[in-house]
Amino acid sequence: MPTLAWNSYGKSAVRLTRVVRTTPRHELREFAIDIALAGDFAKVYTDGDNSPCIPTDTMKNTVYALAAQHPCDSPEAFGQILAGHFIDNFAHVSGVSIKLHQTLWTRIPVEGRPHDHAFTKAAHQRTAEVRRTRDGLELTGGLAGLEVLKTSRSAFCGFLVDAYTTLKDASERIFATTIDAAWKFTPGARDYNALADTVRDILLQVFATHDSKGVQHTLYAMGEAVLAAAPHLEEITLSMPNQHRILANIALFNLPNDNEVFITTSEPYGVIQGTIRR
Amino acid sequence: MPTLAWNSYGKSAVRLTRVVRTTPRHELREFAIDIALAGDFAKVYTDGDNSPCIPTDTMKNTVYALAAQHPCDSPEAFGQILAGHFIDNFAHVSGVSIKLHQTLWTRIPVEGRPHDHAFTKAAHQRTAEVRRTRDGLELTGGLAGLEVLKTSRSAFCGFLVDAYTTLKDASERIFATTIDAAWKFTPGARDYNALADTVRDILLQVFATHDSKGVQHTLYAMGEAVLAAAPHLEEITLSMPNQHRILANIALFNLPNDNEVFITTSEPYGVIQGTIRR
Amino acid sequence: MPTLAWNSYGKSAVRLTRVVRTTPRHELREFAIDIALAGDFAKVYTDGDNSPCIPTDTMKNTVYALAAQHPCDSPEAFGQILAGHFIDNFAHVSGVSIKLHQTLWTRIPVEGRPHDHAFTKAAHQRTAEVRRTRDGLELTGGLAGLEVLKTSRSAFCGFLVDAYTTLKDASERIFATTIDAAWKFTPGARDYNALADTVRDILLQVFATHDSKGVQHTLYAMGEAVLAAAPHLEEITLSMPNQHRILANIALFNLPNDNEVFITTSEPYGVIQGTIRR
Amino acid sequence: MPTLAWNSYGKSAVRLTRVVRTTPRHELREFAIDIALAGDFAKVYTDGDNSPCIPTDTMKNTVYALAAQHPCDSPEAFGQILAGHFIDNFAHVSGVSIKLHQTLWTRIPVEGRPHDHAFTKAAHQRTAEVRRTRDGLELTGGLAGLEVLKTSRSAFCGFLVDAYTTLKDASERIFATTIDAAWKFTPGARDYNALADTVRDILLQVFATHDSKGVQHTLYAMGEAVLAAAPHLEEITLSMPNQHRILANIALFNLPNDNEVFITTSEPYGVIQGTIRR
Repeated sequence: MPTLAWNSYGKSAVRLTRVVRTTPRHELREFAIDIALAGDFAKVYTDGDNSPCIPTDTMKNTVYALAAQHPCDSPEAFGQILAGHFIDNFAHVSGVSIKLHQTLWTRIPVEGRPHDHAFTKAAHQRTAEVRRTRDGLELTGGLAGLEVLKTSRSAFCGFLVDAYTTLKDASERIFATTIDAAWKFTPGARDYNALADTVRDILLQVFATHDSKGVQHTLYAMGEAVLAAAPHLEEITLSMPNQHRILANIALFNLPNDNEVFITTSEPYGVIQGTIRR
Repeated sequence: MPTLAWNSYGKSAVRLTRVVRTTPRHELREFAIDIALAGDFAKVYTDGDNSPCIPTDTMKNTVYALAAQHPCDSPEAFGQILAGHFIDNFAHVSGVSIKLHQTLWTRIPVEGRPHDHAFTKAAHQRTAEVRRTRDGLELTGGLAGLEVLKTSRSAFCGFLVDAYTTLKDASERIFATTIDAAWKFTPGARDYNALADTVRDILLQVFATHDSKGVQHTLYAMGEAVLAAAPHLEEITLSMPNQHRILANIALFNLPNDNEVFITTSEPYGVIQGTIRR
Repeated sequence: MPTLAWNSYGKSAVRLTRVVRTTPRHELREFAIDIALAGDFAKVYTDGDNSPCIPTDTMKNTVYALAAQHPCDSPEAFGQILAGHFIDNFAHVSGVSIKLHQTLWTRIPVEGRPHDHAFTKAAHQRTAEVRRTRDGLELTGGLAGLEVLKTSRSAFCGFLVDAYTTLKDASERIFATTIDAAWKFTPGARDYNALADTVRDILLQVFATHDSKGVQHTLYAMGEAVLAAAPHLEEITLSMPNQHRILANIALFNLPNDNEVFITTSEPYGVIQGTIRR
Repeated sequence: MPTLAWNSYGKSAVRLTRVVRTTPRHELREFAIDIALAGDFAKVYTDGDNSPCIPTDTMKNTVYALAAQHPCDSPEAFGQILAGHFIDNFAHVSGVSIKLHQTLWTRIPVEGRPHDHAFTKAAHQRTAEVRRTRDGLELTGGLAGLEVLKTSRSAFCGFLVDAYTTLKDASERIFATTIDAAWKFTPGARDYNALADTVRDILLQVFATHDSKGVQHTLYAMGEAVLAAAPHLEEITLSMPNQHRILANIALFNLPNDNEVFITTSEPYGVIQGTIRR
């Protein structure tokens, strides 16, 4: 006799643009939101009895209705509002997961001053994840899609060599990656936006200035520096793919290539990840 | 003092096309493979000491070298070969994760007979995941991207109604989804390809013929039927997004719409998931 | 003094699912439609005078309204209905372009019989383009995304060699491509669906059986065969990217590679195009 | 008897990263390049005679070889080098098309100063197209993916109303678009990089400050201002999709929505295009 060992359902890609226009200087926030519920839903699956089923269409409506009653000033804050709604209003819901992906908009400079209501899209995004159960809250902040590249002070030498190794030591190579970061807060941390700015700035500084012996080495240095600069963070997980630039083999044409001409590649790519904890 | 609480690294999107041409009837297999290692790599991160670091470039080479020595006849089998290589050859590797995504190719029919060496790409894919540690093996088979739609015998009624509910009961609605499935095997299961075919066939049969009271209801029926038909499966997890077709509101133009004209939407979409276990 | 030298506007990605349920055997058609208008719209641009502007939102509504009054049985036929609407109803519209991309759905076989109302998505799509002006109609049918691969009877030898050539003659190589085709009809051609099926079948047959000396060579043979088999086609344009599989260099590991192990690549890719006309 | 009425072939997505390291302040340029040739290639198609065929693999090699001998300081300049190579070296080539898509990298600010060798990816890209024939050169510069949004001073009123119109006049609506621009130069224009910066700046200024009566209205104002500010441009073509934000209908929940809560949509989308010529 089969059993329903696990279930989860919800609505994904609920896309919200929220404008705050209480002053002539408008605030603009944009999120894509995924909502997932766990709870006492087994008979929806086993019997087609939908009586406990909160339609995913209602979840979508709830996002817009709650957004109207909240400034949505950070993904962390609005995510907690959403998670709280489902936990507080439905006794048969045991857990809520809210994932938010924030499109960041930067004010267009006009005559040397950031404009009141015109924006360009930033190259990276912010993220947050809220997990609420009857027992508590797990909150994660983050950023995604921060693409960086350095043309010097990046090496990869002294690695393990086996029968299938063809890579040579490189004392100077291009280091290109797209930084995804996710962090957990210390109790009482509240200023989510300032923290996200601090993390972004430190990640960029260390990436630029670190004397890298490998992606792992720089990843750790970046995480260490973030924790030193942001006492309200408990830990940070960094995911930094190695987006290879391969030196073009133009020696065949009697042309020198002193680290100047590279093939940009998409695949395969390295995947380097780590969590640095206080 | 910060610590490296977790780490993982590897190579993703290693893409392999493998032809078996021992007879005039060629076999064609194509995989995209992600490899990730865990183990005693901390000093690579903390000190930039790369001596234990197996370069991700070597992992890529290893895929092609082992593929030449193996028929690669299923993602489950080739994934185990790869995982075994890293566990068996490197004592400081504690865990290996291999994810495989198989592009499926179907023989082109020529004069009523499947051709020996010409193929068209199938609309869905197979997947597998192998997790090897020093303690054992966890093996998962699967399929992805199986897109289906039914125009009748699909309802959604009697759901929970709250202050934010606007959805109405629907006794006849379009049910469209992209089935992703992942299954675990009973000990001794070996015929991975036949099992994958069985699962695909049963999923399609039940999707077509079930009298659906909701996506959850059909998901469970599909999983139950798979376990009944495939004794060598221990459990199956199904992920079935609800890819909404919205009835076009043409009543405004004095036109009837008896479930004939729909808006195809991409977002937001429902996400319905469940694991059915024997 | 600047002038508006050219303008065009419209709505893209209008997505329609159309079910015909006049019998228990339902028909299912799905299109994504792009509409663009040319005409006497200059003052909309230069003065912000919107009086001649048919809102793109109205174009979207028009798709659903006309779809309710038409069986939408082919992209060519429904495209002509849409184009005619804008030309016939708005004297200031001088030209209409309608592009349609059809998702193809295949009946799921149940107990050996194609099901009445349950479908799986096909791996390729159909396309059509309708250009209507006050002077006449230009109609194009097509198919897109037909992915094929052959493991034998494909060579590339005897090409031009210059200072930057490193490629070697290959008497046996993998030939993989994604066929896009577009065709023009002879006057009076009407059976668009049967013609599309014929083209698809001939393209697959010739791809499979041709003794290929290069992508261009097979492209021409495919086009020639289509024109021979389909007297109602005036010409066919084929676009066949060369989706390279590169022989893996495992000789470094003392492993033979008799055309068995290949690296699947996405970029760069060849682009081979040609029009064959009767 | 069928004929080959048109042909074109080449290599697409040739990806180049070019570092200039003649001083400690490195320059970084990155391009994806599409090359297509026309000429006397008919027998490659009709007979499989590859003797005139310059392999697309050679085209790829040529990109890297020429990049080593050129600073690649703008897509317009490097595109001309590439086009010239094929026209000058191969008498049977009658036309060359080179399309370049430039990933833009911005120096990371460190201690208030742009870093010498560390960069972040910009949110938009530059483009160029070079068409060389035996008769001359057609050169186009451009930018792509410049995403902007304004929350005020954007209206759409007074449009044509027909039987299928449901849209209402909006005196204040969100205006969001992704600007693609392509421009032609006056004879003698050379400072491609400065021109691209000027165009980008003017487009942003006018987008921010224009009192928009519609996307078309602002598109024209933007083009007019670019031509006024950049005397070395002959014409500019702008493509500005209308990326709709739809006011969320929360009146159903007795909640006001004074242009504050919107549904972000991807499809369908408006497509507004125009060419403004001097």
